[in-house]
Amino acid sequence: MGGDHGPSVTVPAVLDALRRHADLHIVLVGLSEPTRAALGRSSASFGSRLLLREVTQVVSMDERPQDALRKKKDSSMRVALDLVKSGEADACVSAGNTGALMATGRFVLKTIDGIDRPAIISRIRARHGYTHMLDLGANAQCSAQHLFQFAVMGAVVAGDMAGIAQPRIGILNIGEEETKGDGVVQEAARLLSASQLNYVGFVEGNDIFSGEADVVVTDGFTGNVALKAIEGLANMLVGAIKEQYTANPLRYLGAIASWPALRSLRREFDPRTYNGASMVGLNGVVVKSHGSADVLSFGNAIGVGLAEAQKGVPTRIGQMLREQLAHVSEHISPLLPASEPHTTEVTHAAGGSC
Amino acid sequence: MGGDHGPSVTVPAVLDALRRHADLHIVLVGLSEPTRAALGRSSASFGSRLLLREVTQVVSMDERPQDALRKKKDSSMRVALDLVKSGEADACVSAGNTGALMATGRFVLKTIDGIDRPAIISRIRARHGYTHMLDLGANAQCSAQHLFQFAVMGAVVAGDMAGIAQPRIGILNIGEEETKGDGVVQEAARLLSASQLNYVGFVEGNDIFSGEADVVVTDGFTGNVALKAIEGLANMLVGAIKEQYTANPLRYLGAIASWPALRSLRREFDPRTYNGASMVGLNGVVVKSHGSADVLSFGNAIGVGLAEAQKGVPTRIGQMLREQLAHVSEHISPLLPASEPHTTEVTHAAGGSC
Repeated sequence: MGGDHGPSVTVPAVLDALRRHADLHIVLVGLSEPTRAALGRSSASFGSRLLLREVTQVVSMDERPQDALRKKKDSSMRVALDLVKSGEADACVSAGNTGALMATGRFVLKTIDGIDRPAIISRIRARHGYTHMLDLGANAQCSAQHLFQFAVMGAVVAGDMAGIAQPRIGILNIGEEETKGDGVVQEAARLLSASQLNYVGFVEGNDIFSGEADVVVTDGFTGNVALKAIEGLANMLVGAIKEQYTANPLRYLGAIASWPALRSLRREFDPRTYNGASMVGLNGVVVKSHGSADVLSFGNAIGVGLAEAQKGVPTRIGQMLREQLAHVSEHISPLLPASEPHTTEVTHAAGGSC
Repeated sequence: MGGDHGPSVTVPAVLDALRRHADLHIVLVGLSEPTRAALGRSSASFGSRLLLREVTQVVSMDERPQDALRKKKDSSMRVALDLVKSGEADACVSAGNTGALMATGRFVLKTIDGIDRPAIISRIRARHGYTHMLDLGANAQCSAQHLFQFAVMGAVVAGDMAGIAQPRIGILNIGEEETKGDGVVQEAARLLSASQLNYVGFVEGNDIFSGEADVVVTDGFTGNVALKAIEGLANMLVGAIKEQYTANPLRYLGAIASWPALRSLRREFDPRTYNGASMVGLNGVVVKSHGSADVLSFGNAIGVGLAEAQKGVPTRIGQMLREQLAHVSEHISPLLPASEPHTTEVTHAAGGSC
């Protein structure tokens, strides 16, 4: 039901996905009338692969997460997450309210053992292909242990989902020298250096695109600002290019003459092809589509959910975290008691969800 | 002496600036041999408007700020700042080591009364013209009072330098709702709301470009990451456009046919035209050029130094801060003792310079 377009985008994307993936089953969770209207007669052809679970509530895009959690127990979002909890579904894909999805996901599914907080991870188009970046907005303030946990989750996603062997992990900082930044990134660097992960050191904002790292780890405040700044610049440039190429008939001819180049650029950087941010760290797969997603774009988010479920990402995160925590405690045990994470550096944010 | 190119860029830029501004006087501070070599015979034509102050040391681009401060007392950077301190110069313009320039500037010039920490501010090309953003990397962690002081400094720069009446000030956050973000941005918002500044609320990363605000205030960690992420994306896109337009002869013809559009775009977004970040909050004008600046670009940094000196930006910051602090304490005095800034929310970074 979520996003800017609701079932008019999500339902056609679901039908497309069912056509493309023969072993995919989808439970559409939504209000009866708009969902049935969007389905039309198409649903019949998929038999039991497409089920409709009718609900009576919807979480609005600007609703406060705590209100959604308390008052919307029969919302499409809540019921979809309940299906993951009960095992009736292997993944939940939503274009809805990010904060509400995170809060409800955390309440219903709980975090993986050893993960304090779930994080939002997404692929970002870079020179070498894609960079995986997290956290993109779930946690405004983070301790070194949180950043360490994010690194483990990023390593699993980049490794299992993108097939990168030994993904290179960088911590976002304001300089590459080891002495840069505050106590949190310093301590996170120390923990990662003691792990078996392929930690490559501090990286800077431009390294999101440079190919220096496959996984860029940061707190949710910095990650969210950087992601939105990138989107803002990209939108401004696309607008300026359109304006210049349509300024007069001669310019328009120029655009036609350079159409192959413009088309290649559009394909190369089409943000729709990498829609679908994952909420990692939960006991279940939860994928958040951009609210403005179109059918193609939402289809890609469904693809992310399908792949994460097939790879068993949450289980893999739990395994990897246990392994790495064991390895780290062995090497710097006095500073990392296994029972109680070391959190002196940072005051936890009271309500830092995005 | 600083930057990637040293006197081969700075000296020609100085000669250009002297030609363009009849009332400008410049003291070149540098090692004798390379500076004289770059000057050639050109210097004679400017008489006393161009002086050379020879020094024996240079701060290298990767030198630690504290080392530069302690060991390089006859460096071009230190001597140029000493000239500002003594009143022999009205501004210092450098393409050198940012951290060393900030630390030495702070040591030599001290901060303006009431300003705890200097900040780095720069114009960023946006839809509506330019957005002024600070801090871009001087302070990794900031309290609400620091953000308030940054807002005052940004208001003076946007007002006096860019001629914006009542510049709109936004605090960078991960959502526009008043309840978003941590205690620091919340408290900064409360302080700004009680001031006479034109505070427009929280803004998000994309608003650096949207035109929602003339001044975007943030801590130096987030600001630095966002700025470098923007630069990284811009570089990647420029590279991709070049690659597509030169992929084969037909593409190249397309580029020629659309040359007017491409040229307009290049002009519109040429980062050289807004080179020159200011280190505001010091008792004197200090401008930092991008290290990779070319002659045109470094010339713009000189122009920023000239304009800030003519407008008396440091004095104006002191005035504006006194006025706004008085106004704020009148309205929320119990929470803002004038003598001692309220700093419970944040642990200060030990060495957060960039």
